[in-house]
Amino acid sequence: MFDIVIVGGGPGGLTAGIYAQRSRLKTLLIEKEMVGGQIAVSDVIENYPGFPSISGAGLMEKFEEHAKGLGLEIRLDEVQNIALDANVKVLKTTEGELRAKAVIIATGAKPRRLGVPGEKELTGKGVSYCATCDGPFFRGRNVMVVGGGDTAVKEAVYLSKLAAKVTLVHRRDGFRAERMHLERAEAAPNIEFVTNSVLKEIKAENGVVAKAVIENLKTSKAEEAPVEGVFIFVGINPTTDFVDVDKDAGGFIKTNQLMETSVAGIYAVGDCRTTPLLQVATAVGDGAIAAHAADGYIETFKER
Amino acid sequence: MFDIVIVGGGPGGLTAGIYAQRSRLKTLLIEKEMVGGQIAVSDVIENYPGFPSISGAGLMEKFEEHAKGLGLEIRLDEVQNIALDANVKVLKTTEGELRAKAVIIATGAKPRRLGVPGEKELTGKGVSYCATCDGPFFRGRNVMVVGGGDTAVKEAVYLSKLAAKVTLVHRRDGFRAERMHLERAEAAPNIEFVTNSVLKEIKAENGVVAKAVIENLKTSKAEEAPVEGVFIFVGINPTTDFVDVDKDAGGFIKTNQLMETSVAGIYAVGDCRTTPLLQVATAVGDGAIAAHAADGYIETFKER
Repeated sequence: MFDIVIVGGGPGGLTAGIYAQRSRLKTLLIEKEMVGGQIAVSDVIENYPGFPSISGAGLMEKFEEHAKGLGLEIRLDEVQNIALDANVKVLKTTEGELRAKAVIIATGAKPRRLGVPGEKELTGKGVSYCATCDGPFFRGRNVMVVGGGDTAVKEAVYLSKLAAKVTLVHRRDGFRAERMHLERAEAAPNIEFVTNSVLKEIKAENGVVAKAVIENLKTSKAEEAPVEGVFIFVGINPTTDFVDVDKDAGGFIKTNQLMETSVAGIYAVGDCRTTPLLQVATAVGDGAIAAHAADGYIETFKER
Repeated sequence: MFDIVIVGGGPGGLTAGIYAQRSRLKTLLIEKEMVGGQIAVSDVIENYPGFPSISGAGLMEKFEEHAKGLGLEIRLDEVQNIALDANVKVLKTTEGELRAKAVIIATGAKPRRLGVPGEKELTGKGVSYCATCDGPFFRGRNVMVVGGGDTAVKEAVYLSKLAAKVTLVHRRDGFRAERMHLERAEAAPNIEFVTNSVLKEIKAENGVVAKAVIENLKTSKAEEAPVEGVFIFVGINPTTDFVDVDKDAGGFIKTNQLMETSVAGIYAVGDCRTTPLLQVATAVGDGAIAAHAADGYIETFKER
């Protein structure tokens, strides 16, 4: 039986792993795709203290090296379900079954879909949720970015360096993005702001994105814009379906300040929990606290 | 008037400064002694993710460079008192008076004194609260370490590399330190564990520490040990006297998950608040959240 199984290998999970190893707990980290999580596909991160500017992938490599240097075992597998056998946590994975005294959920969150016609069919054919991944395909072309938060504005700026023109479509009048990102977007000569407007449909020609239909919410007038790429940044869904603990309306796991969930011995950290801020800096704090809290729980754990 | 004044230049304050600068807020950080805070006097830190092993001072230099690179103004001054003029925060400092919409308290905490005879008089003459600062003076000598937590055990290990012998005195039977530190202490050939015992008095010869009187709590027997250094690590006191917000019994500032205190527009982060863990990793998370929360508060701030 493991002391701790950490589910998810982003900044929160890797930090929990670092702390758990330092506490000499028998720990396993399970990651289903790629160590680093969502941040690893970020072009550049400039607000994790100590690293003024580094790629998301570069930073996550450092986290992984740090954790592995302390002996953390990282396994590629997927947790499908967590059940309780009295107070033992039983994790059903693609590869089999694992038992643990404590579990730390660090599965993060995934981009939300708009659900408009054309979106699903054209994903990977012009529709994208990751500018870093797909931006380079649109060098010198016209692209559209949908959303009004940090990610939308930041990625619009990134894309403006590659694309001929970026149309930033947002359903509200004002943006809720960090002002620093907004200023950069405003300073970019090839970003056009289209506010009070929503994307209604994405149309294809020859199987790839060719046009986007935009509706102005004030005038109710729809317009077709010729674009070859549509980047959608309208929020995120946490990856929490596999675990049965208390969650908020968005599916984010509820925790207290100790990262404890509604089930004793199950903790949640980072983007998958109800948190005021989705940042590497905050995921790191969460991970340290959860491992510390789990350590205390494990010390007094008696299988029953 | 400043948007934010940050009081204290440790990891929490510097992170708040990084985030505040990125949000383009008019920010000032006030530090009374030395940027970096308590961690800057730590020999080595191995659990801030991304840096497998770095000196406390080295890490804090990186934080400071990061913040200054974003244009953060750091001023050496001391805040004596924070008063309210309606909703404006008025900070009385040694140099004068400052006005701010929001204040982030990041003043950390200071080592607790034992209050035994000889302690105060001999501080700096053999009595110390910082192994990194004073350890090298005791090369080849006998020293005593008092305490049972992480810091006590970690610093005993550090001192064991310099001193001839380290006597680790703890009033309880068991240690509450991280097991990794404890294992290292147990592996050190020149650390002697003296449990269930307290330091009663420190005696001098020629004006410097010469002997420590130890009482065994089980036998009530007192004994004199010849030591030239006494290092005391028995907890910490937060630096929070200058601000009138709700605090716990230990003087630590109470906050919610947004780092909000009982006064609107005053936030607290890191070691000076009631927090489950006193770590760079957690102070960093706190600082990011407080700056973000303060940004929201400032956006709707109207002087009244």
